[in-house]
Amino acid sequence: MLSTVSKGSSLLPRVWANRATWSGLRYSSSSSSSSPTAVVFMNMGGPSTVKETYDFLYELFSDNDLIPISKNYQRTIAKYIAKFRTPKIEAQYSEIGGGSPIRKWSEYQSAEVCRIMDSISPETAPHKPYVAFRYAKPLTHETYEKLLQDGVKRAVAFTQYPQFSYSTTGSSLNELWRKIKELDPQRKITWSTIDRWPDNEGLTSAFAENITKKLQEFPPEIRDKVVILFSAHSLPMDVINTGDAYPAEVGATVRKVMHKLNLSNPYRLVWQSQVGPKPWLGAQTANIVEFLAPKVDGLLLVPIAFTSDHIETLFELDNEVIGESEFKHKIKRCDSLNDNKTFIQGMAELMKNHLHSSDLYSNQLALDFALGKSNDPIKDLDQVFGEQKKN
Amino acid sequence: MLSTVSKGSSLLPRVWANRATWSGLRYSSSSSSSSPTAVVFMNMGGPSTVKETYDFLYELFSDNDLIPISKNYQRTIAKYIAKFRTPKIEAQYSEIGGGSPIRKWSEYQSAEVCRIMDSISPETAPHKPYVAFRYAKPLTHETYEKLLQDGVKRAVAFTQYPQFSYSTTGSSLNELWRKIKELDPQRKITWSTIDRWPDNEGLTSAFAENITKKLQEFPPEIRDKVVILFSAHSLPMDVINTGDAYPAEVGATVRKVMHKLNLSNPYRLVWQSQVGPKPWLGAQTANIVEFLAPKVDGLLLVPIAFTSDHIETLFELDNEVIGESEFKHKIKRCDSLNDNKTFIQGMAELMKNHLHSSDLYSNQLALDFALGKSNDPIKDLDQVFGEQKKN
Repeated sequence: MLSTVSKGSSLLPRVWANRATWSGLRYSSSSSSSSPTAVVFMNMGGPSTVKETYDFLYELFSDNDLIPISKNYQRTIAKYIAKFRTPKIEAQYSEIGGGSPIRKWSEYQSAEVCRIMDSISPETAPHKPYVAFRYAKPLTHETYEKLLQDGVKRAVAFTQYPQFSYSTTGSSLNELWRKIKELDPQRKITWSTIDRWPDNEGLTSAFAENITKKLQEFPPEIRDKVVILFSAHSLPMDVINTGDAYPAEVGATVRKVMHKLNLSNPYRLVWQSQVGPKPWLGAQTANIVEFLAPKVDGLLLVPIAFTSDHIETLFELDNEVIGESEFKHKIKRCDSLNDNKTFIQGMAELMKNHLHSSDLYSNQLALDFALGKSNDPIKDLDQVFGEQKKN
Repeated sequence: MLSTVSKGSSLLPRVWANRATWSGLRYSSSSSSSSPTAVVFMNMGGPSTVKETYDFLYELFSDNDLIPISKNYQRTIAKYIAKFRTPKIEAQYSEIGGGSPIRKWSEYQSAEVCRIMDSISPETAPHKPYVAFRYAKPLTHETYEKLLQDGVKRAVAFTQYPQFSYSTTGSSLNELWRKIKELDPQRKITWSTIDRWPDNEGLTSAFAENITKKLQEFPPEIRDKVVILFSAHSLPMDVINTGDAYPAEVGATVRKVMHKLNLSNPYRLVWQSQVGPKPWLGAQTANIVEFLAPKVDGLLLVPIAFTSDHIETLFELDNEVIGESEFKHKIKRCDSLNDNKTFIQGMAELMKNHLHSSDLYSNQLALDFALGKSNDPIKDLDQVFGEQKKN
């Protein structure tokens, strides 16, 4: 990992010497072969059915990038933790309808992005949507096999965590690299990545739209007094203290959304889903809601670091934080982005700009990989992204 | 404090019923009397001479809003801590030239803002500059007496912490309220406040200018590989976990500056000046510099939460973090804003907009005061700001 950074050029994105090679020549010459441009949505995923819960938890606790437990015994320990937690988490998925909707939404969003891309970027068409989850089906290796079957030569790993953390997007990219080495040693597929987009226009406009819409459900006389609590998944202070990009990028998203709302309401960024005994980044969503709810006229919770509904919105916010509050009549949750058209259009434009630029990854990414901790990381981003000499 | 929030209207800034009353009538009718509009720069301050160090530390450790030690014995304990730390801190001020330049810069900046204001906002002229420090001369009560002597009727408390923390700006406002009650029970002076300006145009443009300028000092071939480390004063996790606005607002400043630089370089937000045994927000500046310095071509430190030089830049960054590094040849510090013209122009425009608006304080401030902890806080912002019935 450190070699990524110690090399002279490594903290800069490698740009292709001839930009036309990519966005011009390749596509115009290969358009007859119709090899699709793969748009691969990367996310953590969730069990689509209750019975997939154990497998999901096992994969999650096996991820040393997310939860560093042990260098050598991570998967063994993960089995025990997953087994222990499965009944509780199964019950939660049962309560929210028998599974996570994250696959449904990811497939819908990626298909819509590809549909728009075919129209606004014909020179990179056809575009084909894929989903690669870190902890649930379809797992990265399943998706990679599908890409190869479909004759994909060019793929974009599009993180669905808008704000970069080494423990989320970094983990997905590390997994992608393992699967490239395992399944595609001939490097049939050329990869690039959209590794962060915290203040994307479509993303932040869509949040602002959904907030405006939900505020209408409060009585007019209190509407502009409602306190907006932006809630993002927390991280352990261990991870924060490595210099992880995540908290500052979430802060940037929040401020941009609030500017789109003309700073209309009091607001705060808070953090949810802390687990285990170690210190995590706060303030905790549940604590702030409990403290403020008796004192204010209204509270609006806005999930700001996920792009669709999942257990942290449907169970944790709706059923626990709001559902168990004695002030639940004052508290609402903003809709997740899900099928928001502004959001999907924004992703398509981001993807188009990416494909028409010469950037293979952002110029933050090498720094993220220098600072992040993993027991099996990408060591050199330039080996992963861009055209490679075949083995 | 809680009553601020439980009252129906308290989470909204109180606007004046007739905007003209303020920016129109008052100024046009009183212009003959030449009562100045006071522009009061609030900041923590620092000892201007080495021998003022003990007094500074005593005031600092006496501030329960900044360092909650004891409800009843804060000042007694502060004496001991200040006495214990004085020799070490005196030596630091000696090393940076015999005192803190923060008063010099604050007086210069506020005078320049008033000079520009007289020209761009003649209807609120004359403008008169003041400085009110929380822990050093001129202290809030000294400045308040001067305001009264000068016949000021209208004053703006302009925080020089661009990003709001209850432990900094909140503490200064709590102190202002104590002095209003003590020195101005007749409410001769009408107050409003600029309580945050994290993404002000002039502020962020000035940071971008200074960064661009300092990057020129690196060799051209590594210039765009230099890692920019934005360094802000840290806070104890106790404070962060109350829901303090500060970290997300600093994140917003950083992202806006980086956008002004077209995201030209890898960057990270880090936190400095942690003291004592409790956990503080990280990653710590010194740790990240130590970790990255051997691995990268260049590092540029940018103090992002202060507006002029002070001991945290001149001693901690320059002498310790850089001066004690074996890689000091690779590390530079960006100039502080000090006399940057773009910065000063930005503050003048912010002040003009404030005086010509009907806002007495931001609509975040009541929430800040609901969440913040103090043993002697403002309980109702509407008692502090705006025209008040005389006692």
